[in-house]
Amino acid sequence: MFNFKINHKSEISKARTGVFITPHGAINTPVFMPVGTVGTVKTMMPSELKEFGSQIILGNTYHLYLRPGDKSIKKLGGLAKFNGWNMPTLTDSGGFQVFSLSGEKDKGVKQKQKPRKLTEKGVTFYSHLDGSRHFISPEKSIEIQQNLGADIIMAFDHVAPAGATKKEAEEAMERTHRWLVRSKNAKSKLDQALFPICQGGQFKDLREKSATFIKTLDFPGNAIGGVSVGEKKEKIYEVTDWCTNILPEDKPRYLMGIGYPEDICAVIKLGIDMFDCVLPTRLARHGNVWIKSKSRNAIKLIGLDYKYEQIDLLKKKNISNDPIDKTCKCPACQGFSRFYLNHLIKEREPLGVHLLTIHNLYFTHQLVNDIKKKIREKKF
Amino acid sequence: MFNFKINHKSEISKARTGVFITPHGAINTPVFMPVGTVGTVKTMMPSELKEFGSQIILGNTYHLYLRPGDKSIKKLGGLAKFNGWNMPTLTDSGGFQVFSLSGEKDKGVKQKQKPRKLTEKGVTFYSHLDGSRHFISPEKSIEIQQNLGADIIMAFDHVAPAGATKKEAEEAMERTHRWLVRSKNAKSKLDQALFPICQGGQFKDLREKSATFIKTLDFPGNAIGGVSVGEKKEKIYEVTDWCTNILPEDKPRYLMGIGYPEDICAVIKLGIDMFDCVLPTRLARHGNVWIKSKSRNAIKLIGLDYKYEQIDLLKKKNISNDPIDKTCKCPACQGFSRFYLNHLIKEREPLGVHLLTIHNLYFTHQLVNDIKKKIREKKF
Repeated sequence: MFNFKINHKSEISKARTGVFITPHGAINTPVFMPVGTVGTVKTMMPSELKEFGSQIILGNTYHLYLRPGDKSIKKLGGLAKFNGWNMPTLTDSGGFQVFSLSGEKDKGVKQKQKPRKLTEKGVTFYSHLDGSRHFISPEKSIEIQQNLGADIIMAFDHVAPAGATKKEAEEAMERTHRWLVRSKNAKSKLDQALFPICQGGQFKDLREKSATFIKTLDFPGNAIGGVSVGEKKEKIYEVTDWCTNILPEDKPRYLMGIGYPEDICAVIKLGIDMFDCVLPTRLARHGNVWIKSKSRNAIKLIGLDYKYEQIDLLKKKNISNDPIDKTCKCPACQGFSRFYLNHLIKEREPLGVHLLTIHNLYFTHQLVNDIKKKIREKKF
Repeated sequence: MFNFKINHKSEISKARTGVFITPHGAINTPVFMPVGTVGTVKTMMPSELKEFGSQIILGNTYHLYLRPGDKSIKKLGGLAKFNGWNMPTLTDSGGFQVFSLSGEKDKGVKQKQKPRKLTEKGVTFYSHLDGSRHFISPEKSIEIQQNLGADIIMAFDHVAPAGATKKEAEEAMERTHRWLVRSKNAKSKLDQALFPICQGGQFKDLREKSATFIKTLDFPGNAIGGVSVGEKKEKIYEVTDWCTNILPEDKPRYLMGIGYPEDICAVIKLGIDMFDCVLPTRLARHGNVWIKSKSRNAIKLIGLDYKYEQIDLLKKKNISNDPIDKTCKCPACQGFSRFYLNHLIKEREPLGVHLLTIHNLYFTHQLVNDIKKKIREKKF
């Protein structure tokens, strides 16, 4: 049902291209996966996503469980039918949201929301929507994800908070491993691939221990979690490197929550095949776009022959009668001026965010395509 | 530059099909014109509008003058270039908004907003956005509309409020006529067609006087205004009938602000060729859609062989795993369930309103196409 084949390897890094086969179709790696939190990549029609190069989209278990409910989605034939996408999907375990959206007291939790409670059995939490009480465990997460029916599902993990001590990171990692075994035992459907998540904070020996443990359980793919939580870029790359040195080469490697263009370049070089990020869609909602740029402020994309810049279309200095990026072939750059896009965003017209989202997703998919080309030439 | 040709006439009503040639292209009439208040039909890509049958869209002079400014739009080559539509456009005169959005004291005006002041010269008003002071006159309206560069521009008129006495309606009409002559004299561009607006409230002799006056000035098309302001349907049809009995047959007739399906059927029978309405887009924003229906509550569309119903997709009784309308071929009905659309709207996902807007516009354009077919058979 699931199969990963490596097609090309770079001669100067751990980068590779490959194909991962899933029940809803083949995914050409490396692949950027847009995030569709409540089942939809914000503002985007499924047909547009396909047109602009998306191959697989994410859904968030936590959100979809609360609304509209995983059982309703099951009745409609699963996530890919529910949202009209009909191509490969991936759901996270809900763990990240349980820990970040229903957090501890004194950590930005809304006054009326009770703090979550963690035990070995699982997590009791209160909905960020209406304060209602819920319990999620490895078994419950798998049950929900089986109802959602994504091609790739994630093991329920314990993400240590940013700035965790080694002891805290180790405890979270050990719990993640115990929960992983329970997730594996709970899983009964054959048309879904369960990916374990490597934890261990920013500690080399913990990361190596976690990667080694995961490796022995032989899953169809492996993920790395908890690296993007409040860390510096260099640390993210270092942690990723430790993990990919151990995680099996013949299985796809998924780095969770990564998405800045320079990060995408860096982690593909470290042997990452899959990554997701809300940045292209979230930045669009705030009027920001990524463009190829020769400016002094532009950021180098190591391994590629261009630099990029993030610009704010709400700022006067960035407004002109030109398109977002003259060299870009996306529909937003083919028919609309920065002046018009600025007008739409200021007027809160949904088309504005839609066009900026199209541009950012197009830019990101193009970036990955450019990298793939270099890997095929063995020079990335 | 402008030319109207009638192709078919019904044998049992005043309905006709025709073609109106404009600098940005031909418009096949009767035609429903979607409203793009600030230069964009809410949520819609220009390419989608074309795909689903739109031929001409409206822009609002009042809004575009305030933001982003008519001079900026002129620099970009006019409204049709500004918004990437590149097909025929029409701008209203700003009169309706000046009277409705910056109204009189004690009539729902925001506390901080000063009331507008009407003189023979024009109207001083305060922006509904920031309270800034502005003056608009027939000459100023034409100047703005020439900068906006639409194919069809409207004369600046005085719309009498709902429930106006005959004296008030007559004064507003007489002023509209004096302002019409000033609008005509102010117009200098040849690539824009100026349409006069017939006023006169709900008084037969006033409407006939207004239509007769307008007729003598020989414009490339004629409009009927002030009929939809708080009137009952029967009255709207009656007033329209009075006007179309006099307004020239060989020029397109535009009824302003009409859009319920039964109204569209009724007024086309009365010889109307063009009409605009915010309903398909506004209803979508409130979760409402129009569908073909055999239900007891469905509304007859006289002259067509189906009935329709307006349903609220936020109501539980209307949610199912079926599409909005099984018989509809629009993209919203081809790939998405009512359940999913309900979910999107409740979650305030922009895609929800976008899909409902697509459906309502598609429904409206299809309705007009069905009517055109009947007219070609001379049986509408």
